[in-house]
Amino acid sequence: MNIKLGVIGFGGMGKWHAKNAPRAGVEVIAVCDIVEERFKEAEELGYKLYKSADDLLADKEINTVVLTVPNHLHKEMCIKAAKAGKNIIDEKPAAMVVAELDEMTKACEEAGVLFTVHQNRRWDKDMLIAKKAYDENLLGNIFTIESKLHSGNGYMHEWHLYKKFGGGMIYDWGVHLIDQALFMMSGVKVKSIFADVKNVLHEEVDDYFKIILKMENGITFHLELSTYILDYQPRWLVAGDKGTMIIKTFGCDGKIYRTGDMLKKLPPQITETVAGPTRQFAPVPPGGIVTEDLPQVESNWVDFYKNFGEVLNNKFELKVKIPEVRRVLSIMEAVRTSSETNKSIDFE
Amino acid sequence: MNIKLGVIGFGGMGKWHAKNAPRAGVEVIAVCDIVEERFKEAEELGYKLYKSADDLLADKEINTVVLTVPNHLHKEMCIKAAKAGKNIIDEKPAAMVVAELDEMTKACEEAGVLFTVHQNRRWDKDMLIAKKAYDENLLGNIFTIESKLHSGNGYMHEWHLYKKFGGGMIYDWGVHLIDQALFMMSGVKVKSIFADVKNVLHEEVDDYFKIILKMENGITFHLELSTYILDYQPRWLVAGDKGTMIIKTFGCDGKIYRTGDMLKKLPPQITETVAGPTRQFAPVPPGGIVTEDLPQVESNWVDFYKNFGEVLNNKFELKVKIPEVRRVLSIMEAVRTSSETNKSIDFE
Repeated sequence: MNIKLGVIGFGGMGKWHAKNAPRAGVEVIAVCDIVEERFKEAEELGYKLYKSADDLLADKEINTVVLTVPNHLHKEMCIKAAKAGKNIIDEKPAAMVVAELDEMTKACEEAGVLFTVHQNRRWDKDMLIAKKAYDENLLGNIFTIESKLHSGNGYMHEWHLYKKFGGGMIYDWGVHLIDQALFMMSGVKVKSIFADVKNVLHEEVDDYFKIILKMENGITFHLELSTYILDYQPRWLVAGDKGTMIIKTFGCDGKIYRTGDMLKKLPPQITETVAGPTRQFAPVPPGGIVTEDLPQVESNWVDFYKNFGEVLNNKFELKVKIPEVRRVLSIMEAVRTSSETNKSIDFE
Repeated sequence: MNIKLGVIGFGGMGKWHAKNAPRAGVEVIAVCDIVEERFKEAEELGYKLYKSADDLLADKEINTVVLTVPNHLHKEMCIKAAKAGKNIIDEKPAAMVVAELDEMTKACEEAGVLFTVHQNRRWDKDMLIAKKAYDENLLGNIFTIESKLHSGNGYMHEWHLYKKFGGGMIYDWGVHLIDQALFMMSGVKVKSIFADVKNVLHEEVDDYFKIILKMENGITFHLELSTYILDYQPRWLVAGDKGTMIIKTFGCDGKIYRTGDMLKKLPPQITETVAGPTRQFAPVPPGGIVTEDLPQVESNWVDFYKNFGEVLNNKFELKVKIPEVRRVLSIMEAVRTSSETNKSIDFE
């Protein structure tokens, strides 16, 4: 059985799925939207168009739908699609809150349909390089991993600006950064969560967060995002007792930094500032820090759809499992509570 | 009355005070130490040398002592000096714990001597530039201030390696970073504290910390130090809704980054990564972010001793007040508790 896809919601991500899913052998049967200006676009691109989700769901040729509607509609569309007997790929965030996801999961179980979430950032190379450092102990004992996204673009767009549609950056990218952290350290419990969430430029929705996850293995995960920090700090900083890995951007430019034995033998240097001396924070002598290229990783996003197709044919298990995305949503809820109360949350 | 100084402890900081206090018109009367190899050095440099603190404290010409002994001896030396009627400049950290400081304060009050702490980093230009951004609203509404110190030097030195002497980086530089934060936002309460403190390379003492202070004014202060993060992140990042200030080093190289109006008018860009598109984190179009030079500040560390001299003559009040350093020590205790328990601490 091949994936015969219906795309529910023909905005940015709907178009992206319609265009890219075929790379995995998926047949796009039809798309739907309710916004008139998108009708023409869908037809020009040659897609069969429905003007409502109900009409699309009645199409018997479709066996799977991808839900690319605004976040507040995920639950309604998911339950509707399950009742229509369609397998479901839900865009992230899976739902607005855990309770919604539980309703959706129940509906899918009752209908006997497959249900997963498009946590596509598990295929991003920048994360996979950081994960490799962790998995293969490339930096010795890691003490902190920082995963940051900074932008100078400032304002968000379209429905992301509004609270009622599930706007804001925790829903948009926070869900990815948290999912990546849990994915990188599969099986490791999150002991406690402390978060700072702010609306810097936006009235209704968050556009800055810093989340500290203290993991059971002693590593501290620092997740951060801002739409308005204009000198972007590195996408990843992974620090261990045998070196530091920096990945600057999605493009994976960066280095591993290490110190040589020579450092132990060199006499101390002193830096004098206006107000006093420092030995610990004086520069390392030239040559004391050396760099290596980042390790290479392979990744192909089409594996997301290929995996779904295999599971449809009763092979393998889903790569993105509902208990995993439920845990991510649960952390998102704890993040908001922590920030509002100024208190840490004991988690697992 | 001039400051006639006795230096108790002729290690790195003792030598530094003996050399630099005269820049403020201070007369260095004598130094003391108990380590034989330092006797010769003191004499070669022409200082009157005592081989014990008791002998130095018996010198009637001395009216003020600076305590540059290892941290665990601050209390003993302070109380001894107070009883000898000497005014006291205590190196930081003021004491190992708040309870010690309270004993010291009581002894100074009973003896009627002046007591201050050498929180010299209030005179560092990098901090004063960040403070100027806050005081003069140069970046609009500030949402976060990050104050970081990274080093590739790894191991600490001498007594800083040992717990019983008050070693470790919270005592060494944490005390400065916290003091600077409170000094920058004078009068603003700290609502809550969350901290991650680690021994990365050192068996006994901390050499990494991340401290989040949520301030009553809504700004989040992020204080961080590592002796082993090899690609140093900026000393200061100050982010507001009208720009970002970066100060890279003690040397105050850095910029203010701002966006122009043009950003609002430009069409959106999309970045495609391996796993999907992003509009929010696509690059800003060329010219969309502009830079300005950092503002200038003046600072002269000799004001620390000059102020002490003025207070000796009943003019002005101390620039570094004991209730301020008590608050810093109190935060240091909360930091350790937060890290050990993985819980935030409600503070003020």
